[in-house]
Amino acid sequence: MFDKGLAQKAAENLKKVREKKPLIHSITNYVTMNYTANALLACGASAVMAHAEEEVEEMVCLADALVLNLGTLSEVRVHAMEKAGKEACKRHLPIVLDPVGAGATTLRTRSCQRLIRELSIRVIRGNPSEILSLSHEGARPRGIESVHPVDAAAEAAVNLAREHGSILAVSGRVDLVTDGKTRYRVHNGHDMLGSMTGAGCTATAMIAAFLAVGSNALEATAAALSYFGLAAEKAAKSSEGPGSFQIRLLDALYRMDEEELKQGARIEIA
Amino acid sequence: MFDKGLAQKAAENLKKVREKKPLIHSITNYVTMNYTANALLACGASAVMAHAEEEVEEMVCLADALVLNLGTLSEVRVHAMEKAGKEACKRHLPIVLDPVGAGATTLRTRSCQRLIRELSIRVIRGNPSEILSLSHEGARPRGIESVHPVDAAAEAAVNLAREHGSILAVSGRVDLVTDGKTRYRVHNGHDMLGSMTGAGCTATAMIAAFLAVGSNALEATAAALSYFGLAAEKAAKSSEGPGSFQIRLLDALYRMDEEELKQGARIEIA
Amino acid sequence: MFDKGLAQKAAENLKKVREKKPLIHSITNYVTMNYTANALLACGASAVMAHAEEEVEEMVCLADALVLNLGTLSEVRVHAMEKAGKEACKRHLPIVLDPVGAGATTLRTRSCQRLIRELSIRVIRGNPSEILSLSHEGARPRGIESVHPVDAAAEAAVNLAREHGSILAVSGRVDLVTDGKTRYRVHNGHDMLGSMTGAGCTATAMIAAFLAVGSNALEATAAALSYFGLAAEKAAKSSEGPGSFQIRLLDALYRMDEEELKQGARIEIA
Repeated sequence: MFDKGLAQKAAENLKKVREKKPLIHSITNYVTMNYTANALLACGASAVMAHAEEEVEEMVCLADALVLNLGTLSEVRVHAMEKAGKEACKRHLPIVLDPVGAGATTLRTRSCQRLIRELSIRVIRGNPSEILSLSHEGARPRGIESVHPVDAAAEAAVNLAREHGSILAVSGRVDLVTDGKTRYRVHNGHDMLGSMTGAGCTATAMIAAFLAVGSNALEATAAALSYFGLAAEKAAKSSEGPGSFQIRLLDALYRMDEEELKQGARIEIA
Repeated sequence: MFDKGLAQKAAENLKKVREKKPLIHSITNYVTMNYTANALLACGASAVMAHAEEEVEEMVCLADALVLNLGTLSEVRVHAMEKAGKEACKRHLPIVLDPVGAGATTLRTRSCQRLIRELSIRVIRGNPSEILSLSHEGARPRGIESVHPVDAAAEAAVNLAREHGSILAVSGRVDLVTDGKTRYRVHNGHDMLGSMTGAGCTATAMIAAFLAVGSNALEATAAALSYFGLAAEKAAKSSEGPGSFQIRLLDALYRMDEEELKQGARIEIA
Repeated sequence: MFDKGLAQKAAENLKKVREKKPLIHSITNYVTMNYTANALLACGASAVMAHAEEEVEEMVCLADALVLNLGTLSEVRVHAMEKAGKEACKRHLPIVLDPVGAGATTLRTRSCQRLIRELSIRVIRGNPSEILSLSHEGARPRGIESVHPVDAAAEAAVNLAREHGSILAVSGRVDLVTDGKTRYRVHNGHDMLGSMTGAGCTATAMIAAFLAVGSNALEATAAALSYFGLAAEKAAKSSEGPGSFQIRLLDALYRMDEEELKQGARIEIA
């Protein structure tokens, strides 16, 4: 059921992250930026957070990938994202978009649509409600939490992938990753991720780190989610609640070696 | 000394939080927003942080309660609070105000007074110096820390409660909760809360979660503080300092069951 | 090799922090402000974070030291730093500047230079690339990480110290502290600090706490770095990765007693 070649590729991608230590520039929300920065360091990448319009273009020039995350959004922040995104496109840097809360408010939905239209986004990762809201109007999440299962957003993901030439990653109990043709299902993960803030944002950050070093973006995306999910499985084993879980998750991201990921990755070609 | 009926009510309120998973919209400070979001998830509620004027009204419409927290305040942030607060009032959503640093600067004191005047605030929770500064000019805290004991603010709390039709919660070694007539004293808590940042903000968030589901606001407020304080007592037992304490506190909030709260709540009718 | 008198002084400075509980006002970045606030509380100081132009001057008046940290910078933030800094100068409060990412973007380099020119900065603490960028144009870090060893920045540090009458602290495996004449080398620390975000920002915050109580600024700076580094050594011993490390670091800062610091401080007169 699970593909051994993709597990092998996941391990190779992790190895490359540790070797190349890609610098990930994130324009992201205030709530989870500390955690995602720590997770980037834990996986072996470097992190820089900078969002001022005055400097984002210069900062992007130093980076190997760009994360645009729509949590705690504002108009000013969207402008900075556009500037950074255009510079990233010019330099062929991979951009990962996290449409936090798309569908919840007009600002978030419109801003997402604008960024997708104006920029060449390599990967869009969201929960099912967020992904649905990008294709259908009317799919409204509850705040930033999904009210839909992954399967409900599968068709929307495939369509968005085809329309924009992006990879769509839909997070849920089993994650879906698709470029509009191939579909991978990543079975790694743990329910405890739902009891901490920033699990989705962190998955997005991991994708950016893997994209920055991987030659095949679809495989790199699945690899990142598998790695993140497997670390969560390990962290949950010795946790007593969401506090110790999120700390052990950082430890697990840091300690995971390639062999472990090769053995533990559960990626299915769907 | 401690009221068994109120302990029973506290347990029932906790049960309702877990069943209804109320969505709490917080417009809050940058320092502690990650921790309070995690605490909201740990207690069983959902959390959304959004502060842009462009979207706060829409976001409030999805929420079950609104937190206005004055840490890292700015004029722009106050405007967003007013917009969100007015929408919340229109929808009869409970609003909890945390006057972080009221009395320390004119911006904070004035902004608090304006929000209290313009909005119908269900609960105001602060430390004694903050509460005093809202009634007397001249009561000046040291930064954001209290220089007064709870009793020194008891009269001010009762007067503010009567004047504004709000519940006042004054945090300290023993918390005071009053609607201007009845007074509850919550004896749960631990000194270690003073060695972490955001303990007060988290207490405020817990009140919002309990208010969102509780039919009696005074009981819900006391219940939230008792639950939070009891979790702190548990966390302190196995902590080696403020780092492990704050992680174990999230675990304790998550693991506390109703029976435990019923047995451990120490709420006194004063 | 290590100076016993300086170790003794370090212990005395720590004792004073616990006795006087200095209030440290930080205008700092969004990524690490929670952690640095917690570290300030853990070491025995008090923390207030406030950055709105409308209130920074008033807040500074309550404080015993001011931290200006350039992470997640914006023009607006720099104006607030100038206002707060001028008020601090008027009151002879020590200012500590952390030039996060200086050299990475024009905004950061120019803002640093402007603050150094306009304000009387007691201590500038940065990594070697940041310190180099303040004297030479062209020394460009990789995002916010240093690409230079401490020794490469030693001459720049001495020159900057002389030119501006400041103390320069250059962080690395062995930290350099100099006022342009005397040089101290602080050998405490641990590599794990490189795997968490905010280690540098936290070192800066510790310096501010020690400066606020110490009569000799050079000794206080070395003391703070020694204390922070020794706590990191202790934390690393029982950590399984960067997650548990940063939690245990807060515990270690909190639990370190003067005798331990006196025994463990490794400060060399270079």
